[in-house]
Amino acid sequence: MNLYDIKDPSFLKSLSTKELIELSKEIRAFLIENISKTGGHLASNLGVVELSIAMHYVFDSPIDQFIFDVGHQAYTHKILTGRAKEFPTLRKYKGLSGYISYKESIHDLWESGHAGSSISAMMGFLAANQFQEKKGEVISLVGDASITSGMSFEALNLLGSDASKKGIIILNDNNMSISKNVGSLSKILTTLRGNRFIYKTRKIFEKLLPGFVFKVYRRFKRMIKALFQSGNVFEELGFVYIGPINGNDLKTVIYALNQAKKMKKSVVIHAVTEKGKGYMAAEQDDFGDYHGVSAFDVATGKMIKENDQLKKSWSEVISTALYEYQSIKKTFVIMPAMIIGTKFQKFYDTFKDRMIDVGIAEEHAASMAAAMALKGVNVFLPLYSTFSQRAYDQLLNDVARADLNVVIAIDRAGFVGDDGSTHQGIFDVSMFYTMPNVVISMPFNAQEAFDLIAYGFSQPHPFVIRYPRGTTHFDTNQLPSFNQMNGQTWYDLQQGKNGFLIGYGENLNLLLEANDALGLDYTITNARFIKPIDSHYLDQIIKTNRPVFIYEDVESSGSLYAQVLRYLIENNYKGKIGSLTYTNKIISHGSISDNKKDAGVSYSDLIHRLKAFKNET
Amino acid sequence: MNLYDIKDPSFLKSLSTKELIELSKEIRAFLIENISKTGGHLASNLGVVELSIAMHYVFDSPIDQFIFDVGHQAYTHKILTGRAKEFPTLRKYKGLSGYISYKESIHDLWESGHAGSSISAMMGFLAANQFQEKKGEVISLVGDASITSGMSFEALNLLGSDASKKGIIILNDNNMSISKNVGSLSKILTTLRGNRFIYKTRKIFEKLLPGFVFKVYRRFKRMIKALFQSGNVFEELGFVYIGPINGNDLKTVIYALNQAKKMKKSVVIHAVTEKGKGYMAAEQDDFGDYHGVSAFDVATGKMIKENDQLKKSWSEVISTALYEYQSIKKTFVIMPAMIIGTKFQKFYDTFKDRMIDVGIAEEHAASMAAAMALKGVNVFLPLYSTFSQRAYDQLLNDVARADLNVVIAIDRAGFVGDDGSTHQGIFDVSMFYTMPNVVISMPFNAQEAFDLIAYGFSQPHPFVIRYPRGTTHFDTNQLPSFNQMNGQTWYDLQQGKNGFLIGYGENLNLLLEANDALGLDYTITNARFIKPIDSHYLDQIIKTNRPVFIYEDVESSGSLYAQVLRYLIENNYKGKIGSLTYTNKIISHGSISDNKKDAGVSYSDLIHRLKAFKNET
Repeated sequence: MNLYDIKDPSFLKSLSTKELIELSKEIRAFLIENISKTGGHLASNLGVVELSIAMHYVFDSPIDQFIFDVGHQAYTHKILTGRAKEFPTLRKYKGLSGYISYKESIHDLWESGHAGSSISAMMGFLAANQFQEKKGEVISLVGDASITSGMSFEALNLLGSDASKKGIIILNDNNMSISKNVGSLSKILTTLRGNRFIYKTRKIFEKLLPGFVFKVYRRFKRMIKALFQSGNVFEELGFVYIGPINGNDLKTVIYALNQAKKMKKSVVIHAVTEKGKGYMAAEQDDFGDYHGVSAFDVATGKMIKENDQLKKSWSEVISTALYEYQSIKKTFVIMPAMIIGTKFQKFYDTFKDRMIDVGIAEEHAASMAAAMALKGVNVFLPLYSTFSQRAYDQLLNDVARADLNVVIAIDRAGFVGDDGSTHQGIFDVSMFYTMPNVVISMPFNAQEAFDLIAYGFSQPHPFVIRYPRGTTHFDTNQLPSFNQMNGQTWYDLQQGKNGFLIGYGENLNLLLEANDALGLDYTITNARFIKPIDSHYLDQIIKTNRPVFIYEDVESSGSLYAQVLRYLIENNYKGKIGSLTYTNKIISHGSISDNKKDAGVSYSDLIHRLKAFKNET
Repeated sequence: MNLYDIKDPSFLKSLSTKELIELSKEIRAFLIENISKTGGHLASNLGVVELSIAMHYVFDSPIDQFIFDVGHQAYTHKILTGRAKEFPTLRKYKGLSGYISYKESIHDLWESGHAGSSISAMMGFLAANQFQEKKGEVISLVGDASITSGMSFEALNLLGSDASKKGIIILNDNNMSISKNVGSLSKILTTLRGNRFIYKTRKIFEKLLPGFVFKVYRRFKRMIKALFQSGNVFEELGFVYIGPINGNDLKTVIYALNQAKKMKKSVVIHAVTEKGKGYMAAEQDDFGDYHGVSAFDVATGKMIKENDQLKKSWSEVISTALYEYQSIKKTFVIMPAMIIGTKFQKFYDTFKDRMIDVGIAEEHAASMAAAMALKGVNVFLPLYSTFSQRAYDQLLNDVARADLNVVIAIDRAGFVGDDGSTHQGIFDVSMFYTMPNVVISMPFNAQEAFDLIAYGFSQPHPFVIRYPRGTTHFDTNQLPSFNQMNGQTWYDLQQGKNGFLIGYGENLNLLLEANDALGLDYTITNARFIKPIDSHYLDQIIKTNRPVFIYEDVESSGSLYAQVLRYLIENNYKGKIGSLTYTNKIISHGSISDNKKDAGVSYSDLIHRLKAFKNET
């Protein structure tokens, strides 16, 4: 059928199983074709095609309410709810979101982005149904990595014991989160998955059993299981457990969902799926390279990348710096799941005993880091800026309050582009500013990144080094050395006579460029230490009373600008202060450059503002 | 023996069981006697006397490393490590901390305060031991409420599957967290606790079994259990499970700890204890009134309270406001554990179907609140300021980003006094300021609290109402009505000619007083909406160019002062700006007034600063 003709999922009801299977093939082909052009979350979406079709076949969205944990695996759902024609704009500015989006569809009910919130949302929907005396099932599709995050457990613990609420959790188990899974729950799933005896028994029984016998069967099954294997954590938490089922077999999935529909208690359906199913390169990917992809060549599976060999991702710069730093000091890396994203595979392969992957467990990671630092271990904690929000309390209480030397690498700091509003790395500066003792830094280039890493471990405080998504000049054949830094100082990146342009990180390039373009002849200040501010440097500025302009592209409620402004005013600076910043904004998906425009801090905004500033001074 | 003579726990090794039991009685009497005078955490400490003695008897602190989850149950540990004579200063300024304290003792290894971090800390200590090739057991004492927090699960999931690490978790199960326990895990514990068959079998076996048979016995036990009851979540997560044992029976506890010591795998000892043991009033407390107590009369159990009948806690003002508000709009309360602390028992008793207690699960609570608000339910989410930090990401992403009308009650906002640095409510203003769409308010008095509650539900955004620990004038016989507020405006609490003193909440009283004392004749501005600032009001100030002084007692990196300063400067205000605030400080325990002095924002600091400000202007 023509996927572009789909208006809403009601057409599914009249299809035969054969036609549904046909549809799944068409959707899979559509996804590979489209994502190869636009980039996006490939492997996870290929894995859940049948699950998504079956959900819409068995239930009636939006009266029955679907929740997609994280939400990047909802592409089939988007097609079935009439959005196929938007796929060429996937993750592009004003285009189709890569996640669930309230704006896009009445079928999109829970915007997430960070793992583990779906069962809490389910509890909320169920409580709202009770409160408002509404009907409808609530069904959540959760990955086997999301389920290990702490908040998933908080919700499982509550929902399983709440007899007044019934939710259906489809546990999508592909034995792989973003990269490899870790932890006991992962092992339990493996055991259940490998449980051939039950699986085969089920195959026979499935055809014989009418619905009402199913419950008895389930108890029987449980008894058998109790004899032959370790128990089932979901049943213990109060759920009916159905599984393992082949999550890529439409007939089985539909059968299981219908059974779940009939039950009165909350259900976990353990669906084993093949991540990347239908696309060889993604199926065979053991590391997670095909989790989120850029555009790629369908035939070869090769990502279409930039050609510049001297441009590398900032993640690679930082991971290389830490790798090289091992010859100076042994450090221990606590990694919450993002080995691939943060480019730490090589480090892990070389220094297995210096790293632990804790999965999606940022809270745990932060407190564990604090405990190791307490014992004098040099601890390195890489977190995406947006995920560091998960550990706010642990970073504040266990690391910052106790003033421990943990070096916190904040990856994807700043705008992240196509992932959109749930993933923007724009809050970390103001967030870490609230935490006592924390030093916040951002390197201008690879050399400074190396220096800051070494500096971070040479001083006693919690140390944040933040770096953006994207690339920078980095010649791996000529690695920087670790230069000693002379304290937490700012410096003149370029000297000028008429005033000061203050910034940090790669934004300094924009300041250099704007300074030239407008013929300002200002000093460009590298405020590489965002916290604490360099009061000595500012004192020199105050003496001159020359104009000062601060440029930042993060939420500015408590950022560098707020602190510099305060210092200047409180120390009787009499000159003119200007700024380009923003606050209180939600920035949606698009390119990073689109993000900057939306926030009003693009290069052209900078030029515009600086022109006005020049005229005022 | 004389508890004051104890220097360190080594003396325990030579005591007989009989002498240890005698000691436990002396410690219990000592605790009741002392806490009745100073206040403190009574019930939990009475429950763990034997567990603490046994820990120090079986293990060698600090080579063997003890972790106390939350840390308020470490009083016996403090006595055994030589701090009995400090108890008269408990929780007082410069006195003995009510929690674990790095400064106090080499035996205090993990400062916490927020539930659930101990198993993560254990993982950290174990990893540090491996990394540094050091020896020593790591033992964590965790309550049955802490274990249900998400981060506990994250750590259990990892530790249970990590064969290279062995930790001993003592699960202190008194079937009561701060108040009642909730969730499946709580039910599982109840099942295990009631498991008489196993318990009796154990009683016989315990005397017969040599250590090496213990493991076989354990497997046997597990087989029996699998037949007769649901499984054991701890065993499934990879732990050896020992229990349930009577945690108030010293002999049993010592035996269990010795068994745990011999094992190679991580162990969970399920110790059932009686909270408040040895003090009738606390034993019989089903609600948690004796969790944290003020000074009380030992004979009657009555708390010694202030006599002023017209002074009530702010918590009571807010809970009463919401109770009364039910006649206007039905609201749903999502309560993370703090029913007693936030004074919501009456609400719950009256409106059972309008409230859910989710236990210590702030992350879950915030996302569940978002989901309900999405469905149009009026949701009220009470959080202690310090615990709201746990939900930063969920509040930011699910509530604020999506711009949902959840009314977030921030209790214990500001200094909290005797609980000390881990519990200070001083970060919420800067924290919520980083979140788009959020409105932040603070009432000056009970009437304004009522008005703000009603206003919060009448507008569409996430709405924070923060209120302090302590009391205010509140006549329950003459309740305020809900007056309609005219938007998010500031107003003149008192008018003056010479300038403006801006503040919010009860601090306004200090401004009124200082204004009088110094004869300033300034306008006192009630900035009851901390975010967004009232730009219209500020525009009027700017026109006058009269001096402006802002007073706040929270971390100020992104607080009201930062925002007002910015607005004034960016809008060409030419007058003088002054402030009394602080940033980047850790504030330890003492009275709230001690906290203010430590932060440099006490009334006398205010007078001092205002005098200087007057002279400058």
